[in-house]
Amino acid sequence: GWVRSVRSQKEVLFLHINDGSSLENLQVVADPSLGTRDLTFGSAVEVQGKLVKSPHRMQNMELKAETIRVVGPCDIWSFPLKMKERHPLEYVRQFPHLRCRNNTLGSLLRVRSEATAAIHSFFKENGYVHIHTPIITSNDCEGAGELFKVETSNEAMESAEKNHFFDVPAFLTVSGQLHLEVMAGAFTHVFTFGPTFRAENSQSRRHLAEFYMVEAELSFTESLQDITQVMEDLLKTATSTVLSKCPHDVELFHKYIAPEQKVINVTGRCCSPFMLISYSEAVEILKQAAQTFTFKPEWGCDLQTEHEKYLVKHCGEVPLFVINYPYDLKPFYMRDNEDGPQHTVAAVDLLVPGIGELCGGSLREERLHFIESRLQRYLDLRKYGSVPHGGFGMGFERYLQYLLGVDNIKDVIPFPRFSHSCLL
Amino acid sequence: GWVRSVRSQKEVLFLHINDGSSLENLQVVADPSLGTRDLTFGSAVEVQGKLVKSPHRMQNMELKAETIRVVGPCDIWSFPLKMKERHPLEYVRQFPHLRCRNNTLGSLLRVRSEATAAIHSFFKENGYVHIHTPIITSNDCEGAGELFKVETSNEAMESAEKNHFFDVPAFLTVSGQLHLEVMAGAFTHVFTFGPTFRAENSQSRRHLAEFYMVEAELSFTESLQDITQVMEDLLKTATSTVLSKCPHDVELFHKYIAPEQKVINVTGRCCSPFMLISYSEAVEILKQAAQTFTFKPEWGCDLQTEHEKYLVKHCGEVPLFVINYPYDLKPFYMRDNEDGPQHTVAAVDLLVPGIGELCGGSLREERLHFIESRLQRYLDLRKYGSVPHGGFGMGFERYLQYLLGVDNIKDVIPFPRFSHSCLL
Repeated sequence: GWVRSVRSQKEVLFLHINDGSSLENLQVVADPSLGTRDLTFGSAVEVQGKLVKSPHRMQNMELKAETIRVVGPCDIWSFPLKMKERHPLEYVRQFPHLRCRNNTLGSLLRVRSEATAAIHSFFKENGYVHIHTPIITSNDCEGAGELFKVETSNEAMESAEKNHFFDVPAFLTVSGQLHLEVMAGAFTHVFTFGPTFRAENSQSRRHLAEFYMVEAELSFTESLQDITQVMEDLLKTATSTVLSKCPHDVELFHKYIAPEQKVINVTGRCCSPFMLISYSEAVEILKQAAQTFTFKPEWGCDLQTEHEKYLVKHCGEVPLFVINYPYDLKPFYMRDNEDGPQHTVAAVDLLVPGIGELCGGSLREERLHFIESRLQRYLDLRKYGSVPHGGFGMGFERYLQYLLGVDNIKDVIPFPRFSHSCLL
Repeated sequence: GWVRSVRSQKEVLFLHINDGSSLENLQVVADPSLGTRDLTFGSAVEVQGKLVKSPHRMQNMELKAETIRVVGPCDIWSFPLKMKERHPLEYVRQFPHLRCRNNTLGSLLRVRSEATAAIHSFFKENGYVHIHTPIITSNDCEGAGELFKVETSNEAMESAEKNHFFDVPAFLTVSGQLHLEVMAGAFTHVFTFGPTFRAENSQSRRHLAEFYMVEAELSFTESLQDITQVMEDLLKTATSTVLSKCPHDVELFHKYIAPEQKVINVTGRCCSPFMLISYSEAVEILKQAAQTFTFKPEWGCDLQTEHEKYLVKHCGEVPLFVINYPYDLKPFYMRDNEDGPQHTVAAVDLLVPGIGELCGGSLREERLHFIESRLQRYLDLRKYGSVPHGGFGMGFERYLQYLLGVDNIKDVIPFPRFSHSCLL
């Protein structure tokens, strides 16, 4: 493992060794003669000895060393991490190749790994087929403009519109939804969990150019409740798994990282039932609020972050579903509720304390005549055994921010990519 | 589910319904009066009724229908898949949005999903931390030229070398190895399982522009055997899991898809111990072969596919490790065996029947003075508590080809991307 501390006394040498499997170190007790100049903070060592019950109350076991070998010394003078210092996240972010040796990032990466496994397990146990939706695509899911283009180095130089590697312009995916919808025509339940991309020129603590999305699609689904139920189950299952598998790692965040106001009772947060209101109810609540908003709440207008935060607070700081949004606010593939001429669609957003929108989903418009002027392949899917279906997506980094109370999204992904930065 | 066959008799209507959960259909028995014009092959139906023991020997249960509702009709005249026809893989490849409704692709996608889960489980159960290595990177792992460039649409238009979105040229990753090595400096065992990219202008049945790699990195590893052991365990565990979870799906491939010579005893294939020879032994075997090769075998030259196939055959058509390759054939980060001046490195390739190279790995050169003229960050990793470590990568699509005997790599990925083709 790696040396986390060295304490040399006259009669005894104490080391704390960490191998990355947990926040806890193993205490090594050795004769001072086993110490060498290379045995410093950050160095990698192989220690052989006897594992014995520890006399100290804070630890179960300790290792009585017989041999200590420094397999990789560490130049502590230039090493940017220092012994026993709690470096701020902004500081360690400068060292993408070394920050994983910091306690906080170590915990983060273990939590991220557990959460990933928990999400895969949740879907597997519920009969979902996992689909690797493509990264390079000739589609543009949302019709939005913030895309990354993919080309070979030659193409870029020629800058001609012809001779594309794929014969057509190709982009990095912004969502796997359309490809999941393809699969939902053969499998009742499918999911994907992969990277998605936005070329947003934003340096905010909320945006990354490369981030992970969990997306699911369910066939033979005729009510939004089927969708919200899966979202709620997914979140609760993943959260309770992470809490039980790495309680110390989560605790570190809640104790030292999460801003005061965000440290919410985790058990309550994860077990109490989620709330549900309609968009129209949400607007009514906002209109009757004592608070003045920068954006005046109005039926037909998007909910702003300030609105979302107020709504979550109003409902008792628990996760809150908002359903049935105005038709004009949502993309073409969402299902018309037919509660008036193009009045509302069966869309749902899940808002959570401290973050705002965590998931978004909808029933999809499966009726051919409702979407007839659209893409040929999208039409084909409706022509050949189309079924009522719906799905949702969840931003994985936002989920981790919510779980751990991390303010900046750059601190919950191993190698953050954002405008002006692609280190390593 | 979706209707796979309709057989209308005078007294009784038989339907076969499939919901994508398995190759097997559910037989529905109904009064002919429940049939409608829309009840065709390919249509999506909701059937209510009683599940009863079937009088037929081929199936356990059947559904006695009380109501049948066609929720999504299917225009069978234009639908490219036909009832009871075994469409060739080349044919269905033309319909990326519909081919998943074909039996073969359905089985493939279930196997792919199970294999993905089995690989995640294998690493998790062995204490590996899962890392999302980045897709967009400013590195070029292999120093090779076949990279995709990533830029915003504006950049592409300006075609200027300045004003990059990330301030530097950015590419799609060709391997997560360097990023895993970063993590292997804090965690003893790490793995990644994600998409990688090559802009190879090849239309061969062996190449994709976007494909999946399983990569692992192990710290405190001083012998190649530690690496080959993990490769062997991974392959055996994943394979036996897939075989036990979807035997019928695998059987379909071995019966109808795999070319005769490739249908190898699966249990033997997956349980017998793998063989291991050195590169030098391999060259000797090739030199003594009765067979004439297009490329004459010679110490210091790369093994060609014809050589790999001969070696696997020579060793009894079981997976075969070849270790200790010439220094000059392998990249700079592989560990010098010091068996002569820059003679061989601790590299390993795993060759499998029918495919050739499936995995490649090595011990990494952890000694600072051996790689001193290299990248600053790579050096930093060696400066601060470097440890002996090694790792490997496995092409996931090649694994599926090997497992199922599929000839063309385009048929084992949901949405294949290759030169001149990026459908959907």
